[in-house]
Amino acid sequence: MTVDNRTRNLAHIRASFRSEGAMRLLRARITRLERGCAEITAKNQAVLSQQDGFVHAGVLATMMDSAGGYAALSVLPPGSRVLAVEFKINFMAPAVGDTIRGIGTVRRMGKRIAVCELEAKTRKNKTWITCAWGSQTVYCIKAGEANG
Amino acid sequence: MTVDNRTRNLAHIRASFRSEGAMRLLRARITRLERGCAEITAKNQAVLSQQDGFVHAGVLATMMDSAGGYAALSVLPPGSRVLAVEFKINFMAPAVGDTIRGIGTVRRMGKRIAVCELEAKTRKNKTWITCAWGSQTVYCIKAGEANG
Amino acid sequence: MTVDNRTRNLAHIRASFRSEGAMRLLRARITRLERGCAEITAKNQAVLSQQDGFVHAGVLATMMDSAGGYAALSVLPPGSRVLAVEFKINFMAPAVGDTIRGIGTVRRMGKRIAVCELEAKTRKNKTWITCAWGSQTVYCIKAGEANG
Amino acid sequence: MTVDNRTRNLAHIRASFRSEGAMRLLRARITRLERGCAEITAKNQAVLSQQDGFVHAGVLATMMDSAGGYAALSVLPPGSRVLAVEFKINFMAPAVGDTIRGIGTVRRMGKRIAVCELEAKTRKNKTWITCAWGSQTVYCIKAGEANG
Repeated sequence: MTVDNRTRNLAHIRASFRSEGAMRLLRARITRLERGCAEITAKNQAVLSQQDGFVHAGVLATMMDSAGGYAALSVLPPGSRVLAVEFKINFMAPAVGDTIRGIGTVRRMGKRIAVCELEAKTRKNKTWITCAWGSQTVYCIKAGEANG
Repeated sequence: MTVDNRTRNLAHIRASFRSEGAMRLLRARITRLERGCAEITAKNQAVLSQQDGFVHAGVLATMMDSAGGYAALSVLPPGSRVLAVEFKINFMAPAVGDTIRGIGTVRRMGKRIAVCELEAKTRKNKTWITCAWGSQTVYCIKAGEANG
Repeated sequence: MTVDNRTRNLAHIRASFRSEGAMRLLRARITRLERGCAEITAKNQAVLSQQDGFVHAGVLATMMDSAGGYAALSVLPPGSRVLAVEFKINFMAPAVGDTIRGIGTVRRMGKRIAVCELEAKTRKNKTWITCAWGSQTVYCIKAGEANG
Repeated sequence: MTVDNRTRNLAHIRASFRSEGAMRLLRARITRLERGCAEITAKNQAVLSQQDGFVHAGVLATMMDSAGGYAALSVLPPGSRVLAVEFKINFMAPAVGDTIRGIGTVRRMGKRIAVCELEAKTRKNKTWITCAWGSQTVYCIKAGEANG
């Protein structure tokens, strides 16, 4: 059985995901992963809330940041590493419902710097609503290159 | 016994803090609270990490966001509410060590909009290092005013 | 002859545009204006450059900021006002070419706060390239409401 | 006469500044330049305004962006280059008065990435007011290194 590069790359991402303590803490899992896009989903829980009972902005940011990082990683050669340089997120609607999702999409991949679009959605009564949206700068250390 | 406005205000903030599930999840506590400034501290744990073992950017963001919100709340009349409109955070150094701290400071309080400076520090070998820094826009619903 | 609300609104936006000194300085004009979207275009000139000869990031930001403001204004009742609370822009490619365009699109309109997506493109050899992309928070003072 | 490294570096920055068309357009000049900090000043003019007569947010951004870039350049070896990756700016007060100033300060210089704090002030009736504040990510290509 052969494993092509693309599949190995995704396996590498899933292994990276499993090593993130914060993803275990949120009981999150990767629900979509393709070239340039990653989606992370978790059940909402009382321990994810802020003072008004909505999902905490930082919890949304955690899922969005990981999703963006994996989106960047998905277009890099296996063995590459990514580091968040910064992100900026606008909170657009109260985050309520039973399920939380963070989505990252690569908007531009440069030699060292990737720019990703980040989005968070929550599902309530079977309807998904965008509750946060933003952008992220990712520093990419490509496999086989010097540390940068 | 009289309770002056300022003390009541801080009690209100501490009550709000206790109602945040995400702060319990991170085992965070308020370690400083004064007019225009709030500081939140938590012990580092394996479940707060990203894939390289550093504290997850989103965990830092969670503590920074709450600290900024409480900083804004601390200059408003008791009974007021705050909502994060957006934040932007630069990650400046790997977040490693035994303790994590988020600090929020009000830079400007307007009629409806506050701007806070956010900072995250981690302590390693008894030395604190700034690992993240940013800004936050907070929407303020002052007690006694219409919803805005 | 009757002038409907929508047409009056756009006339109001064009009048506002003409009152912007900075748009005259850049010799910019509105090239598209519809509900929720505005586009501003200018010829590139040597006086718009940064040190490497590319269009200055701040010139792109100026056109993007105005475009976002007019996009927000286009969905508000005539006589409303908008103020930029903040913007964040990623620069994704060197801005070179004969023509510069700033595009603003409303992503969410709330009671007081609008969030716009901003984009800048430049045209070289008849091809448009996205050279900057970002987000903007706009404070909206709707006609007929108190100042906020 | 010897010229030490530091002086050569600053001469290099002033030459770079003179090559910026946008700085000529705004009639701006460097009014302070030291290791890690740069300040750019211009007289206010009607052609710098937005629709309410305040200085346009993009004009403030232009001066802040250049100031941040020169602040970063001032701590790099002569012959180095800088590129804005992104900036985020909060607008905190109406920008009115006779003089406009953009200030950039290096908060962290890494191997490739610098983070600068940006501020804009305007002077009215001899009093300076902070009207904008933000952060900037700068990509640094150090003299003598590969393009990165």
